[in-house]
Amino acid sequence: MRMVDVIEKKRNGKELTNEEIRFAVNGYTQGEIPDYQMSALAMAIFFQDMTTAERAELTMAMVESGDQIDLSAVEGIKVDKHSTGGVGDKTTIALAPLVAALGVPVAKMSGRGLGHTGGTIDKLESIPGFTVEISIDEFTNLVNKNKLAVVGQTGNLAPADKKLYALRDVTATVNSIPLIASSIMSKKIASGADAIVLDVKTGTGAFMKELDQAKELAEAMVGIGKSLGRNTMAIISDMNQPLGYTIGNALEVKEAIDLLYGRGPDDLRELCLRLGSQMVYFAGKAESIEDARKKLVEVIENGKARETLKTFIKAQNGDPSIVDEPEKLAKAKYLIEVQAKSDGFVAGIEADQIGTAAMLLGAGRATKDSEIDLAVGMELHKKIGDFVKAGESIATLHSNREDVEEIIERVRDAYRFSKEDIGAPTLIYDEIK
Amino acid sequence: MRMVDVIEKKRNGKELTNEEIRFAVNGYTQGEIPDYQMSALAMAIFFQDMTTAERAELTMAMVESGDQIDLSAVEGIKVDKHSTGGVGDKTTIALAPLVAALGVPVAKMSGRGLGHTGGTIDKLESIPGFTVEISIDEFTNLVNKNKLAVVGQTGNLAPADKKLYALRDVTATVNSIPLIASSIMSKKIASGADAIVLDVKTGTGAFMKELDQAKELAEAMVGIGKSLGRNTMAIISDMNQPLGYTIGNALEVKEAIDLLYGRGPDDLRELCLRLGSQMVYFAGKAESIEDARKKLVEVIENGKARETLKTFIKAQNGDPSIVDEPEKLAKAKYLIEVQAKSDGFVAGIEADQIGTAAMLLGAGRATKDSEIDLAVGMELHKKIGDFVKAGESIATLHSNREDVEEIIERVRDAYRFSKEDIGAPTLIYDEIK
Repeated sequence: MRMVDVIEKKRNGKELTNEEIRFAVNGYTQGEIPDYQMSALAMAIFFQDMTTAERAELTMAMVESGDQIDLSAVEGIKVDKHSTGGVGDKTTIALAPLVAALGVPVAKMSGRGLGHTGGTIDKLESIPGFTVEISIDEFTNLVNKNKLAVVGQTGNLAPADKKLYALRDVTATVNSIPLIASSIMSKKIASGADAIVLDVKTGTGAFMKELDQAKELAEAMVGIGKSLGRNTMAIISDMNQPLGYTIGNALEVKEAIDLLYGRGPDDLRELCLRLGSQMVYFAGKAESIEDARKKLVEVIENGKARETLKTFIKAQNGDPSIVDEPEKLAKAKYLIEVQAKSDGFVAGIEADQIGTAAMLLGAGRATKDSEIDLAVGMELHKKIGDFVKAGESIATLHSNREDVEEIIERVRDAYRFSKEDIGAPTLIYDEIK
Repeated sequence: MRMVDVIEKKRNGKELTNEEIRFAVNGYTQGEIPDYQMSALAMAIFFQDMTTAERAELTMAMVESGDQIDLSAVEGIKVDKHSTGGVGDKTTIALAPLVAALGVPVAKMSGRGLGHTGGTIDKLESIPGFTVEISIDEFTNLVNKNKLAVVGQTGNLAPADKKLYALRDVTATVNSIPLIASSIMSKKIASGADAIVLDVKTGTGAFMKELDQAKELAEAMVGIGKSLGRNTMAIISDMNQPLGYTIGNALEVKEAIDLLYGRGPDDLRELCLRLGSQMVYFAGKAESIEDARKKLVEVIENGKARETLKTFIKAQNGDPSIVDEPEKLAKAKYLIEVQAKSDGFVAGIEADQIGTAAMLLGAGRATKDSEIDLAVGMELHKKIGDFVKAGESIATLHSNREDVEEIIERVRDAYRFSKEDIGAPTLIYDEIK
C-alpha cells in the first residue's frame, strides 16, 4: 500500500477501507509516513469528508495508537461527559456528585489545558488540599467506593491524535468535522468510557459559532460512538453568553456548590439536569429520562449530592468543609465593579471577550507554562434579557492587582444593550441521539 | 505573515495576494516553510483552484526562484514551442529547422527526462557526432548565425518548481490545472521565451485523457503567458494513437527528415504546419497565419528547411550527410514483424501501450539512470481507419535482442479492430488564443 494512493482516493471522494485508515494512522504515528503526506490527507478529508464507518475506524486507530485506560475493575456502566468548551462552564463540578449520588460510577480523567480559565482539575485544586495525583488503582478503588473520583490525564492516550492535532493546527485543517469528532471521541474511548454524553456548545463563545456546524459535529460524534458500541448522545447548548454568573476557578466551584444547595443559576441548573438525566439513564439507574431527572432533583433537595461531593473531596485529600463554608475558598484581594454607562436591556454578551478578560486577570493559561491564579475571575450580575440602569454594576472583577482599566473596558465592551427586552436566549437547541 | 493563514485563505476559496504567493514560494524554496504546509496548500489549490492573476504570480515566483536564461543577445522574437508529451512526438526535430528557415530564432533548451523514448536531445544524439554540450555564449552565437541551436538544460531553472513537483508527486496533488500550468510556464519563461506555442495533447496516450481537461490546461497556460506579456497560444491535438508512424530515437529523426522532404506522414505534417505557422506569425515573419503556412510549405518544397537542418547539425558537430542519407543513422540488429490475427479496420491504438513497448525495447528510460538504445523502437504500418488482413504486418519492431514475444503481444494488444471503418480521428480539436 502506498500513502499517495490513499491520499488520491480520499481526494477523489472515495471511501477509505479500514486497512487504508490503519495504514495511514499507524504509519504516521510510527514516523514512517511523513508529515507532508498526512497534511495532504487531512486537507483532502477537509474537502471530501468521511463516512461514519471511516470516522469510527479513524477513531479506533487513534485509540489503539496508545494506552487505553482499563476501567474493568470499576463496577457498573461508566458514563463520561464531554463539553466542547465554553466560558463559565463548571458543569462537571456539579454534575459529577449529582449523578454519583444516584450510583452512577464517575471515573473522570481530566486535563488542564489552555483557555479562559483552568480545566476541571485546576478548578478542583482551588479546594484546599485537593489532589488528583493518585494511582490508577487508587482511582478505581475510589470510584467503586464513592462512585466518584478524578485523576489527572495519565498514560499515553491517543498519541496519533496528539501528533495529528499538532499538524492540523499549522496546516489549516483543524476545522474539519470528521477530524474534530474522531479526535474528541478517541480520547473519550481511550479513557475507558462505556457511554458518552456530549455537550456541544454553539454561539459567539463556542468553537462552533453556527448552530448548523454544532449539529453536524454532534451528529458526527454520536455516529462514531454508536458505531463503536458506546451509548452516545449530544445536547446542543447555548454559548452566546457565559454559563451561569461566574468565570474563574474558585468562583466557579462556589457556583457549582450553590447548585447542589438548590440555589444555582437557572441555565447551569437546567443544563446539569438535562445532561445528568441522560447520564443516569445510560448508566441504568433510572427507568426513563423523566425518572432520572426526578431523582436528580431529589438528591439536590435531600442533600445527598452535597454529601457525595464532601466524601469525594475528602477521599482526594481536600477540605470538605468548603462545601458548607465556600468562603474558605481562595479569595482575590480586590473587588472591582464594572458599571454600565447607560440604561438598556442586555441584548448580547460576547462570551469569548468575557473569557479573555478572565484570562487576563490570571484565571487561565495563555501558554502551557503560565501559572493560574485560582482566586481571580469575575461574577456577572446581568445576563441577556436583564434591565440595567446607567451606573449600575454589570459585573464584579475579582482581581489580585488594582490596575485593571483595560479589563474593565473589555468586559463593558462585551455587553451589547438594546431599548427592547429580547428575553433570555434558548439554552438547549437540540438533542442528537 | 503566517503560512497557516495563507493555507486557510486558499482553503476558504479566497484569492491570494501577490505577497502571499511570494511568501509561500520563497519561504518554501529557502526551506523556511516546511513540506507539510506546502502540501496542504497544494491540496487546497487542488480543490479551490487559482485565478489567472494567482497563476501568473505563482509562475513568476517560481521563475525568480532560480536562474533565468538571458537571451537578449539573440536577435528577434524568440518563440518557444512546448508539447505536453505524447508517443511518437518528433515535432520539434522537424519544426525547428522549418521555422528557422524563415528567420525565426529557435533557441531551444531541452531536457532528457523519463518516458517512452528519449527527449529531443536524445533523439538528436542519434545523429553521429551531434552534441548539445555547448556554452550559453556559443549557443546564442549559433542562434544568431543559423537561427537554430539546441542546448541541454543548464543552470538552476525554477528550483521552486522542481521542489514543489517532487512534493506534489507524493501527495496526490500533481493533477491540478493551476499547478501543472504554472510548472510548465515557469520553465518556458525561465528559459527566455518571448512567445510560446503550446501543443496540448489529449487522448489515451496523453497526460490529459479528456478533451475538457486538455482545454482547461491550455486555457490556464495561455492565460498565464498573456498575463506575463508573452504572446501565447495553444493547439489541442489528438493522442489517441501515436503521432506519425515511428517510435524510437533514430527512427523518429528519420521520420522528421522525411517531412522536410515533403514525404512525412499526414498527421505529423499537419501538426507541424499548424504549430509552425503560429511560431512564424508570433516571430513577426509573416503577415498572417495563412501567409506563414504558405511560407512553410515553400521552405519544404525548395529544400531550404533541409539546408537549415544540415547547417544546424554541422554547427553542433554532427554529421549533416544523414539528412540526405538517413540510412546512416543507428540501426537495430533485428527487424521483427507484428502480424494481425484477423481481418478488420483499426478502431483504436492505445498509444501508451505502444510507448511502453518502445521503452521495453530500450528506446526510453524507465529510471533516471537507464541507458537509452538510440537505434531501437518500432514502425507502425497501420493507423486508425486502415484496413488490415489477417497475417498482415501491423508494425515492425526494431530491436537489438531477439526475445521480444512479450513486446509483440503488447503491440498486438494495443490495437483494437472493428468490422466498420470509423475513419481517421480528428487531429486538431481546438485552438486556444
